[in-house]
Amino acid sequence: MSVSTLASAPSLCAPLPVLGRDVTVPLVTGGEVAYAALDYAASAPALQRVWDDVAAYAPYYGSVHRGAGYLSQLSTDLFENARRTVAGFLGCREDDQVVFTRSTTDSLNLLAAALPADCQVFVFETEHHASLLPWRDARVTYLDAPRSHREAVETLERALADRDPYGPALVCVTGASNVTGELWPVRELAAAAHAHGARIVLDAAQLAPHHPVSVADLGVDWVAFSGHKLYAPFGSGVLAGRADWLRAAEPYLAGGGASRKVSRRQDGGVDVEWHDSAARHEAGSPNVIGAYAVASACKALTEAGFDTLVAREQHLVRAVRDGLADVPQVRFLSLFGDDAPRVGVLSFVVEGWNSSHFAAALSAEYGIGVRDGLFCAHPLLRTLLGSDPQAQGECGSPESEPGEKSLNAIRVSFGAGTPDEHVERFVRAVKELVTDGAQWNYRTEDGRCVPDTSA
Amino acid sequence: MSVSTLASAPSLCAPLPVLGRDVTVPLVTGGEVAYAALDYAASAPALQRVWDDVAAYAPYYGSVHRGAGYLSQLSTDLFENARRTVAGFLGCREDDQVVFTRSTTDSLNLLAAALPADCQVFVFETEHHASLLPWRDARVTYLDAPRSHREAVETLERALADRDPYGPALVCVTGASNVTGELWPVRELAAAAHAHGARIVLDAAQLAPHHPVSVADLGVDWVAFSGHKLYAPFGSGVLAGRADWLRAAEPYLAGGGASRKVSRRQDGGVDVEWHDSAARHEAGSPNVIGAYAVASACKALTEAGFDTLVAREQHLVRAVRDGLADVPQVRFLSLFGDDAPRVGVLSFVVEGWNSSHFAAALSAEYGIGVRDGLFCAHPLLRTLLGSDPQAQGECGSPESEPGEKSLNAIRVSFGAGTPDEHVERFVRAVKELVTDGAQWNYRTEDGRCVPDTSA
Repeated sequence: MSVSTLASAPSLCAPLPVLGRDVTVPLVTGGEVAYAALDYAASAPALQRVWDDVAAYAPYYGSVHRGAGYLSQLSTDLFENARRTVAGFLGCREDDQVVFTRSTTDSLNLLAAALPADCQVFVFETEHHASLLPWRDARVTYLDAPRSHREAVETLERALADRDPYGPALVCVTGASNVTGELWPVRELAAAAHAHGARIVLDAAQLAPHHPVSVADLGVDWVAFSGHKLYAPFGSGVLAGRADWLRAAEPYLAGGGASRKVSRRQDGGVDVEWHDSAARHEAGSPNVIGAYAVASACKALTEAGFDTLVAREQHLVRAVRDGLADVPQVRFLSLFGDDAPRVGVLSFVVEGWNSSHFAAALSAEYGIGVRDGLFCAHPLLRTLLGSDPQAQGECGSPESEPGEKSLNAIRVSFGAGTPDEHVERFVRAVKELVTDGAQWNYRTEDGRCVPDTSA
Repeated sequence: MSVSTLASAPSLCAPLPVLGRDVTVPLVTGGEVAYAALDYAASAPALQRVWDDVAAYAPYYGSVHRGAGYLSQLSTDLFENARRTVAGFLGCREDDQVVFTRSTTDSLNLLAAALPADCQVFVFETEHHASLLPWRDARVTYLDAPRSHREAVETLERALADRDPYGPALVCVTGASNVTGELWPVRELAAAAHAHGARIVLDAAQLAPHHPVSVADLGVDWVAFSGHKLYAPFGSGVLAGRADWLRAAEPYLAGGGASRKVSRRQDGGVDVEWHDSAARHEAGSPNVIGAYAVASACKALTEAGFDTLVAREQHLVRAVRDGLADVPQVRFLSLFGDDAPRVGVLSFVVEGWNSSHFAAALSAEYGIGVRDGLFCAHPLLRTLLGSDPQAQGECGSPESEPGEKSLNAIRVSFGAGTPDEHVERFVRAVKELVTDGAQWNYRTEDGRCVPDTSA
């Protein structure tokens, strides 16, 4: 690999060690190459530190909350300490609750089930489906895509002011777009929400792995994130924030652990007393390994220091943007403009290319894993592409003609474990594909775009 | 350790290797001892094979269903293969769906959310809270504890025949009690349910780790189990069975992965097309490590052979029962009689002892981890103890006088990884505690019964 394109400034830290950094994958063009995992926005590799912590704990695994044995009590302490670690990582207020869920999607579904009666929900159409869809029977106002931070705040203020009736309301907003990587003005939106008597939940799935998040500093009421995007892919996520709605709600899951006392009534029915701690919404045996992994990641990121991590990641963002600045066929997707601050998540389309085909060639010919499609944000993709988006066109030879609108996009995303070489290779690969085309033919098989090896 | 009490018959297999088999824990009486994990019914240790499989896969972890990269496609295949492995393990019918959930509790909550309108639910009061409580707005008929298999079937038949209106109905029944370990007549209950136009879901949380389970052979409509009781404690569980109710239901979680297409309407709202495969209820990034671990456990148990595993476990059950047969202070809890077939789960009370105190002494003085309490089955404990059960009495010196009723119980449980020595030590410890009393004083601290080391 040439060192010409991206010389690391000496002040930048090395990437954090992650699992899979030595994995090689076959190329359709022959040979093997180190896999470049550039789909962090979907699922990030586990930090080596997280894996080591899980591996060290695993032999001591025991039932949480319920056993009399040494390992049960150790596991219970570990689980509750994980809760405290996450609370610290998120800058929670003293009375906030930290509920372990399975993912951001699960966290927002939990909050949706805890809305007070007649609560209205306000959400920008630009959100991930996990934020758009869980609100069930609530009245949801979908806000048009804003084109600046200021427009976002003004749009929200107007909608909240105009709501009828002027009752309880919840705003759900992302901290960083899972498509464009752009940061959203969370603090300002929180202030606007509160000024209008509403509450706000921050979808930090794409923010927490890249930026420090403080519930108290941002002034949000809740925050949700996923372990699998935070280098801790063991099935746990988090909802943290104000306890009142959570305490007042029916248990998210009904079962053991959430119930304090169950007794049969004279009439044959049963009476239940539920816990009002976080356990109220965590029925069933907690996923203690998942929660411990999340806490381990929180510690590792804190110890590495977000100043350092952000500096390194921004260096990689610049490398992508600068490296492809002279390739006019590549158009990056953006709501707030090319210079808007963003995390290491960038989506783009390539003129003359079907995005699935392009992504397949990056994988098969360069060993680079990106994502193509609509990124679980269909309304946003429609706005950004100006087309009726489709998850996958037929691939084969490049189909779309210059000037045609793309049906979907390609996303490249990275983070604390990404070495410079992955991004360098990505930039080189995009340039080569645009200039020279793919070396191989591709076809659609079982919904995937794959190299045509039948010839 | 003396070999006198429990000489293994030469035909019995060795225990399957599990994590933690070399872990030692401190004794309050001095020194360390190998930890005897006898709380399998709450959470079983991971099979070494499961851990090895997870460790081998972890570097290849990638985003499921959505990425174009090599590891994403490998992970997607692994996840979908896990689904097929589980379907085979459970003897599913061709059209059955396998949904990955987080646990049995989650599985039953999912099914509860998928009930057709006006569906009535029938459940014995003897069930775990996970089976008693999730039915939300459905009308639930709680059936009195039966004292024989025949009474169970007759009670169910009568209740189903008498239901008014004679509409859709679901029966939820355990395969093996989480308290007594006793097997339930699942096949007969399924036949009774179907004869009366009802469906039946099997709570196999305590059955699947110990016995082969075949959805088709038993004739049940669904089965639910948990990975953490099946030697795969990575946050995944399963609901498997008939697709029709699941396809017709609102998605259990709303978000990405469950949605096929999301588009804004002219009026500003959104339209959603949901998947009708298992993905419909699996929104968010799947816990691929958890699902893979469950599949690995299914394979390991199948390869070891349930005939062999059952023979070994029954040998341990007999060792407990025979070893304590001459200790009249020990009373085992049972619905169906002492000789009823059961898995390696036994609960008991000790005359003259507070159960929490007894369990604490087993841990602190013998390194044995059991569970005390009410086992998330309060109505059953009330029936079995004949008292108003309480999760934890104050411990200290033994409180209850001979003849007084116990407030809670002690549960010892084991499985495929349990060596003879653990059960031998347990039998010896119970006898010594009953005969000689505890060597140490105990007190209640933060809700736990702990050795009083203040002296």
